[in-house]
Amino acid sequence: MPENSPVLVDLKFIPREVEEGLKCAFPGREVINLADPAQKTRDLSNIAYAVVWKSDPDLFSRAPDLKVVFSGGAGVDHVLTLPGLPDVPLVRFVDRSLTTRMSEWIVLQCLLHLRQYRAYEAQASARVWQDLSQPEAADITVGVMGLGVLGQDAIRKLQVMGFKVAGWSRSAKALDGVETFDATQLDTFLTKTDFLVGLLPLTAETRGLFNASLFAKLSRKGPFGAPVFINGGRGGSQVGADIVAALRDGTLFGASLDVFEEEPLPSDSPFWDMANVFVTPHVAASSDVRALFTHVEEQIDRFERGQPLQHLVDRKAGY
Amino acid sequence: MPENSPVLVDLKFIPREVEEGLKCAFPGREVINLADPAQKTRDLSNIAYAVVWKSDPDLFSRAPDLKVVFSGGAGVDHVLTLPGLPDVPLVRFVDRSLTTRMSEWIVLQCLLHLRQYRAYEAQASARVWQDLSQPEAADITVGVMGLGVLGQDAIRKLQVMGFKVAGWSRSAKALDGVETFDATQLDTFLTKTDFLVGLLPLTAETRGLFNASLFAKLSRKGPFGAPVFINGGRGGSQVGADIVAALRDGTLFGASLDVFEEEPLPSDSPFWDMANVFVTPHVAASSDVRALFTHVEEQIDRFERGQPLQHLVDRKAGY
Repeated sequence: MPENSPVLVDLKFIPREVEEGLKCAFPGREVINLADPAQKTRDLSNIAYAVVWKSDPDLFSRAPDLKVVFSGGAGVDHVLTLPGLPDVPLVRFVDRSLTTRMSEWIVLQCLLHLRQYRAYEAQASARVWQDLSQPEAADITVGVMGLGVLGQDAIRKLQVMGFKVAGWSRSAKALDGVETFDATQLDTFLTKTDFLVGLLPLTAETRGLFNASLFAKLSRKGPFGAPVFINGGRGGSQVGADIVAALRDGTLFGASLDVFEEEPLPSDSPFWDMANVFVTPHVAASSDVRALFTHVEEQIDRFERGQPLQHLVDRKAGY
Repeated sequence: MPENSPVLVDLKFIPREVEEGLKCAFPGREVINLADPAQKTRDLSNIAYAVVWKSDPDLFSRAPDLKVVFSGGAGVDHVLTLPGLPDVPLVRFVDRSLTTRMSEWIVLQCLLHLRQYRAYEAQASARVWQDLSQPEAADITVGVMGLGVLGQDAIRKLQVMGFKVAGWSRSAKALDGVETFDATQLDTFLTKTDFLVGLLPLTAETRGLFNASLFAKLSRKGPFGAPVFINGGRGGSQVGADIVAALRDGTLFGASLDVFEEEPLPSDSPFWDMANVFVTPHVAASSDVRALFTHVEEQIDRFERGQPLQHLVDRKAGY
């Protein structure tokens, strides 16, 4: 293994942005961007590092000598499910920019529902000028599931905007000034929650968690008479058919979905044009590639100096 | 004048909400709600207090003995332009709820533009799943004009969301951690501003201020290549025709308008369906009537004890 091993890049992001980001990245090191057709048949042995997001399924068989795998995002389920994942350290991407972007998306979605965006939009289409009875943020409790870096940042910003907040995580977590709940207290947490925000990793335990039975436990005491479901985590933790049914029968007042069980969202999905549903194409917290490459450079530097890697994934927990 | 003078209420809000709010308001004092048809011909002499929002124009001739006039909102131009306004103290409505609501609206509008809501909405209509190159909040400078209670709260929340901010007010105002500009530095302020937020009162000086010449001075260096105009203040301070032209010729990238020169917005206005324009019907910071009546009760109490009234309007300045 040479000292300055090349870096494999297989990121299904916007190709132009990856190319731009690579221009000044990894000084003194060769970069093999698999988006470049010329690399299709290249020998990938003797390469120590890979930065991946939704990689080609043959990546690990083509590159058998990887020493560290870096995820291009905060989630790692896209790596853990790849065939042939070697038993090497797996590092997630944690970054101010990614965190800020996720909170932008969550606060935006909460405000869209709070401020009755779709009702006003329908009035505007009909050129109707009329004010609607309007609750304020303090009338809504936003319950956030997942209290990692992203969940904590979202909670803080929702509080600043005036929302009441509650937090849930598998194991108990104390947050200053926030009522938090653990796995044994899920029902109590749901009973208090008007807007439910999902920021959970996809694991065996979270798969299908957001389903009809869970939605039925959410608060119906809020100003809109029914709860809102907002998922910025992983599509696999929701049951799309249950969300559609809950929206249709009034169990849910609205939803904001950035993630889906099948992505891209199939063109015949009912979500595309449901009345009070906001759909975005898994862009809530798109990684800033420059920040991603800086983070990977730092971790490679630590690794080669013999220092411990940061943001390591616990494969057993799945995140 | 009796000790417990009745209170005149003439609020063009949602009538049901005013009625609800009045149920427990002003204990020990008669309330005359002019929305009640039975009060149409009532003698309004010997009444000391009026709470008004877009009053009937004959209010002051019908009620000649007013001692204090309370505005139902933060703005007072709707009172100052009424015929026969008596020379008595005029009190504006300043309140946590009103401030919070205005900041909700401003942060929502900034996020709608930042997160390319209309572009994603167009993609969703066509059932297209595609991520767009996405700047983050820190790539945008939001310039706020008007640094009263509302402007300061909006700036603080925009900062927490990650935006860069700048502030402008007629006379210099120092805000911790915020670059501020005064009347003599308007052009410098505009050159820095990607998203311009108007929170100005309507006065002789602000009438027509947001016009073609001002829009041409805004920054074109931001990630969208052209600025966004967001007005939560008063419609009279903008020139609607100039906004339409600026949107059409690309001087402006987008706009969010809660206020208009003519309200209700006429049904033939082009604003109703322009591509990157968000229209709301003067509801950015609808007053919470319960909070409004509590505030008026407190001020009447101060007035009757001989204490100075708070939030007094300077008629010469116009706000």
